[in-house]
Amino acid sequence: VDTLSLETWLQPPENRLALHEVDRLLSTTAISRGDGRTRSLREASAPMILVDPVVAIGEGENRRLSGFLELTSTDAIIVLRGDEILYEKYFGDNGPQSRHIVMSVSKSLCGMLAGTLVAAGELDPDTRTSVFVPELAKGSWGSTTVRQLLDMTAAPDFDMNYLDPSAEVQAGDRSAGWRPRRDGDAAGTREFLEGLRGLGEHGREFHYCSATTDVLAWVLERAAGIPYERLLGERIWSKIGAEADASITVDDHGSPYACAGMCMRLRDLARFGRLILEDGRVSGEQIIPTSWIRETARGGLFETEDEFDRASGTYKNQWWVPSDDRGTFYAVGIFGQYLWLDPATDLTIAKFSSQPKPLDHSEEHVFAFRSLSDTVARQSSRHVLSEGINK
Amino acid sequence: VDTLSLETWLQPPENRLALHEVDRLLSTTAISRGDGRTRSLREASAPMILVDPVVAIGEGENRRLSGFLELTSTDAIIVLRGDEILYEKYFGDNGPQSRHIVMSVSKSLCGMLAGTLVAAGELDPDTRTSVFVPELAKGSWGSTTVRQLLDMTAAPDFDMNYLDPSAEVQAGDRSAGWRPRRDGDAAGTREFLEGLRGLGEHGREFHYCSATTDVLAWVLERAAGIPYERLLGERIWSKIGAEADASITVDDHGSPYACAGMCMRLRDLARFGRLILEDGRVSGEQIIPTSWIRETARGGLFETEDEFDRASGTYKNQWWVPSDDRGTFYAVGIFGQYLWLDPATDLTIAKFSSQPKPLDHSEEHVFAFRSLSDTVARQSSRHVLSEGINK
Repeated sequence: VDTLSLETWLQPPENRLALHEVDRLLSTTAISRGDGRTRSLREASAPMILVDPVVAIGEGENRRLSGFLELTSTDAIIVLRGDEILYEKYFGDNGPQSRHIVMSVSKSLCGMLAGTLVAAGELDPDTRTSVFVPELAKGSWGSTTVRQLLDMTAAPDFDMNYLDPSAEVQAGDRSAGWRPRRDGDAAGTREFLEGLRGLGEHGREFHYCSATTDVLAWVLERAAGIPYERLLGERIWSKIGAEADASITVDDHGSPYACAGMCMRLRDLARFGRLILEDGRVSGEQIIPTSWIRETARGGLFETEDEFDRASGTYKNQWWVPSDDRGTFYAVGIFGQYLWLDPATDLTIAKFSSQPKPLDHSEEHVFAFRSLSDTVARQSSRHVLSEGINK
Repeated sequence: VDTLSLETWLQPPENRLALHEVDRLLSTTAISRGDGRTRSLREASAPMILVDPVVAIGEGENRRLSGFLELTSTDAIIVLRGDEILYEKYFGDNGPQSRHIVMSVSKSLCGMLAGTLVAAGELDPDTRTSVFVPELAKGSWGSTTVRQLLDMTAAPDFDMNYLDPSAEVQAGDRSAGWRPRRDGDAAGTREFLEGLRGLGEHGREFHYCSATTDVLAWVLERAAGIPYERLLGERIWSKIGAEADASITVDDHGSPYACAGMCMRLRDLARFGRLILEDGRVSGEQIIPTSWIRETARGGLFETEDEFDRASGTYKNQWWVPSDDRGTFYAVGIFGQYLWLDPATDLTIAKFSSQPKPLDHSEEHVFAFRSLSDTVARQSSRHVLSEGINK
C-alpha cells in the first residue's frame, strides 16, 4: 500500500499505514509544542527493564508480551515508571518520530483541557451548553449542562456503530471529512452537531457518544475565546515537554475533530500521562488542577455499558475509570490506541495499534496492562529487597 | 476566509490564510526535528536592535522597514546577527509557531541535502541522472548529469509561467495535488517527470525549472535508499536545533513536492541559515560539508535571466548567488519567501509573505535586505566604537 483513499483508509491493510500518516490523507492543523525544553525520558536500570514478560490477556489466559503486541496489531508501545522507560518498541515502519492518530484518546485530552478552564474561572460545569454556544440552543444539546458533556450523560439520538453507514457516528465522520460525502450530509462538524436530535432525558445514564466531545470542545473554544487547537497548544501541549507538535484533523471550515482527530508521537502521549500522574504539575507550575485529576480518577455516577469497557467501571471527565484498587484510569481509542495510567505503581503505558477491526481486544488490553503493572510492582519490590541485601 | 479551496488557495485573499495552513488543504508528511535540543536564539542587546530603520527598496527609493513589510504582504520576518535576534515580527494571525510554506526555498534545502550525500560518497555529481533513476532514461532527463540538475542547466521543455494553466509548471502542480486535476494529467509528480520532453542541449544555459529539483530529489532518494522526507529529516532537519517538525506536501502516492512543498516555522528556517553561515558545523559536528557551502557561495557558470533575479548573478546548487562584495547567497520562493545569508555581516534574514501575485517585489526585497545589512554593519561599528570609548 502506498496510496491512501478516503473510502478505505480505516480498513486493513490500508489502516496500517494510514493511522500514522493521517496528514497524507486528511486536512489537519498543528497543535504547537511551543519552543521549550523536551521532558527527558531515560532508560531504566537493568533490573527494572522488561524483557518479554508473560502477561495475562484474559481470565486464566497468558501470553508473552511480544505475543500480545502481535495479536493486537501494535504499531508502538512505551511503558514508563516515573520518567524511566521500562519497555519501548516500534513495529513496521513506525518509529519514535511517527505521528499516529489516537482516535478517542483525543477525548481525554479534551477532558483535561476543560479542567484548566474551570481552574481559570472561565468555565462552570453547571452552566448550560447553550450559554456558550447559542447555535445549539434549539437542537438536542440545548438543555444539556457542561457537566453532562464532560461525563457523557447527554442523550442525543446517536448510533455509535462504527461499521454502519447509516449510523450517526459515520455521518459525523463524513461531515468531518473522514469519509466521502453523501447527499444530505452536513457541511462540517458544527453544522452536524446543530442538526442532531435528542433521544431521552439528559443526565440519567451514560451514553458514550463522539458528538458529545465535539460539543464540549466547541464550548471550551467559546469559553476561552480562541480556537480549540490553539487552546490545546497553549494550555497543555506546550506545557508537557513535548518533543514535537501534535496535529488534529479539521473539516472544510477548519473546525477540529476533537472527538478523534489528534495525532502525536508516542513519547509525547506518554509525557501527557506523566503530567497527570504528577498531579498536573511541571516543575512547580500547575498545568491541570490536581483537584480535577482526582475528581476524574474517582470516576462517574453511572456504570458504563460499552464495548470498550470489559473492565466495567464508570466514565468521568472524558476518561474511563475502572475503579480498581490501584486508582487506574485510562484513555482509549478505536483500532487499539491507549493511554493507561496506574497511580499505585506510577506506571504510564502508551500504545498505538492498527487493528483490523475498530473494537477488538479491549479486554485483552485491560488484562495485559494490569498484568504489566503487577510485574513491575513485583520487580520493583525484589529490586528494593536486593538493594537492601547488598548494603 | 475560513474555507480553503484547491481552485483558489494561491490567490488573494485566500492565500493569506492558506500559505500558513497548508496542511488544512493539501496532503503532507512530516520532516522530523528528531528529539534533540533547540538551538537558542536570543534577543540582541539594546544598541543592536533594529527599531524601524529606513531601507532602500530600489535605486534612490527609500522607505521605513515597516512600510516595506506592508508593501510586500509580510507574514513574518526575523533578522539575526549570529544567533542574536535584531528584529522579529509577525503579522495577521501568523506567530512564531505558525508553519508557513516556503515554496522554492524548498529547492535550496534540497541543494544542501545533496552536499551531504556527496560528502558521504553516496553521490557523484558527474553521474548521469538515469544511473540513479532508470525510469528517467528515456525522456528529457536521460542525458542530464546530477551536476546539471543541481545548477539548473538541464533543458526540459518547461514553461514556468505560474499564471498560465497550459504551462508545465501548472501541470506539475496539478500532478502534485496542488490544483484540481484535468483530463490527461499525470497521476503523480514522478509520472509527470517521466513524461516531460526535452527542449535543447543540457548544460549550456541556465533554465530555472521546478521539475529539475524534483528530479534531483528523486536522485537523492535513490542514492541514499530512503524516502526524501526521511532523508531531509535525518541529515538536516534533526541537526539544526529545530523547535518543530517541518512538513512537505505529497502527491497521491506519497511522493513529496521537493521543488516547493516544504512548510516550517520562521525561526527554524533561520536556524537552517545559521548552520550554513557556520560552515555547516554544529558543535563540532560537520552536517553539510564546508566545501559544498563555499562552492555554492561562489556561484555558477551562467548569468541568470529570470524574473526572480533583479540582482543579476548566477545559480548554484539550488541557491541564488548575486556575486556581490559580501558573499551573499539566498533562497527565494514565490509570493515572497526568503532566506537571505550575508556572510560579511553574519546576517540571516528569513521572511514569509503572502503577496497577491507570485512574482512581485523581488527587486525591493534584494534592495531592502542589502540595506538592512548595511545598517547592521554601521550600527555594529558604532557599537564597537562606543564600547571602545567607554573603556
